[in-house]
Amino acid sequence: MEFYQKEIGLPAFNRGFHLVTPLVLKEFPEIRNIQCGFLQVFIKHTSASLSLNENADPTVREDFESHFNQMVPENMPYYKHDYEGSDDMPAHIKASILGNQLLLPITSGDLNLGTWQGVYLCEHRDHASSRKLVCTAFGQV
Amino acid sequence: MEFYQKEIGLPAFNRGFHLVTPLVLKEFPEIRNIQCGFLQVFIKHTSASLSLNENADPTVREDFESHFNQMVPENMPYYKHDYEGSDDMPAHIKASILGNQLLLPITSGDLNLGTWQGVYLCEHRDHASSRKLVCTAFGQV
Amino acid sequence: MEFYQKEIGLPAFNRGFHLVTPLVLKEFPEIRNIQCGFLQVFIKHTSASLSLNENADPTVREDFESHFNQMVPENMPYYKHDYEGSDDMPAHIKASILGNQLLLPITSGDLNLGTWQGVYLCEHRDHASSRKLVCTAFGQV
Repeated sequence: MEFYQKEIGLPAFNRGFHLVTPLVLKEFPEIRNIQCGFLQVFIKHTSASLSLNENADPTVREDFESHFNQMVPENMPYYKHDYEGSDDMPAHIKASILGNQLLLPITSGDLNLGTWQGVYLCEHRDHASSRKLVCTAFGQV
Repeated sequence: MEFYQKEIGLPAFNRGFHLVTPLVLKEFPEIRNIQCGFLQVFIKHTSASLSLNENADPTVREDFESHFNQMVPENMPYYKHDYEGSDDMPAHIKASILGNQLLLPITSGDLNLGTWQGVYLCEHRDHASSRKLVCTAFGQV
Repeated sequence: MEFYQKEIGLPAFNRGFHLVTPLVLKEFPEIRNIQCGFLQVFIKHTSASLSLNENADPTVREDFESHFNQMVPENMPYYKHDYEGSDDMPAHIKASILGNQLLLPITSGDLNLGTWQGVYLCEHRDHASSRKLVCTAFGQV
C-alpha cells in the first residue's frame, strides 16, 4: 500500500474547457507502481473545475463552454455577489455543478479510463492565472 | 487492508434514469469482507453517467429525464459537435453535470447509504449499447 | 494506514446553502493523525447535497440558492412526483447536480484545501430536519 501526493501547477488557460490529461500524467510517473488503486485530481479553487469527458473532438469542448454560458448566464438580476466582475458568480456556480475533483481508477500501473475519456480543466474566469492541483495516487503496489 | 477491483458490464438500457443498485451489488460479494472502507463505481463512458438518488418512486426517475432534457436541450443553435446525432452533445453535457463515479462508504460489510439512496445509471443516448463499469472496493478487513 | 469513520448529525438548516466546515472538522480531530490521505464527507439523503465553494462572502451562498431555483424550478408541468410538495422533486434534481459527497485531500494532518474553499451543506427542502453525514478519514499515519 503506497500513497504518492504532490501539488501541480497548471499554466494559465483561457476561459473554456481544456484537455489536460497529458499535463497531469507527465507529473505522475508513480502511477506505474500501483497495481490497483486510484488517482485523485483535486483543484484548489472555486472558480475553475475538473471534469472527465470526450477527448477527441475539440468542438465538444467549445460546446461545453457555450452551453454552460447559457445555463449559468452572467448579469442575472438576482446576483448579489458581483464586485469581482460579471464572470465571477457564474464561475462559482459552474464550478459546483461540474465538481472540484476526479477519482480515477488505476489498474496494473495505468489509469483505467474509457477510450474517449480525458481530463478537462474547466476555466470559468475571463482572466485567470495558473491553477493549483493536489494529485494523490494510492493503492496496492 | 484489501482492494477488490473488477469490470462489470451493464445490459443496454433505454435513454433515461435506471436504478441499478442490485445489478452492481450482486457482482460484488467482497463488500462483506470490508469493515470500513469504500466502493467506487466508475463508468468508462462520456455519454452516460452515475448518480445516487431516490430509490422508491419510479416517477422520480422519469422527472429526472424530463428535467435534464429541458435543462440541456437537443439542437441548440450553438452546438458544433452534431454529426453523431442530436442526442450526442447533450449526452456529453449531462454526463459531466451528473458525474462519472460514485464513492460509497462501507461500514461493517455493507454499503452505508441512506434509506432512500440508490445507484442510478443515467443513459443519455437514444440507442446505447451495454456500458462498462470499473468497481473497486477497498478498506479494512 | 488508518481508517476513522463516524456518523455526524448536522442541525436542521433552512433551505439554502450553508458553510459547515467548522461543524464537520470539530467532530474529526483524527485528521491530525494522517500524514497523507483523504476525508470523505458523504450525505445520506437525496434532497440535500454537499459542495465545496467560496467560504468568505455570504452573498455567494445566497446567489447559489437564487440560481438553483431558476435552473431547477418548482411546479414544472412535466413533474409527476409532486405529492411530497413542490420543493421535493427540484430538491432531488439539485442534489444530483451538486453531488452527495466530497473527497478532500489531507496533507500533514490538515485538510489541503484552497484558501477560499469551504464545505457547503446545500439544503433543498423547505422544512428539513437534521441531516446525517458519514465521514471517513483514511491514509498514512
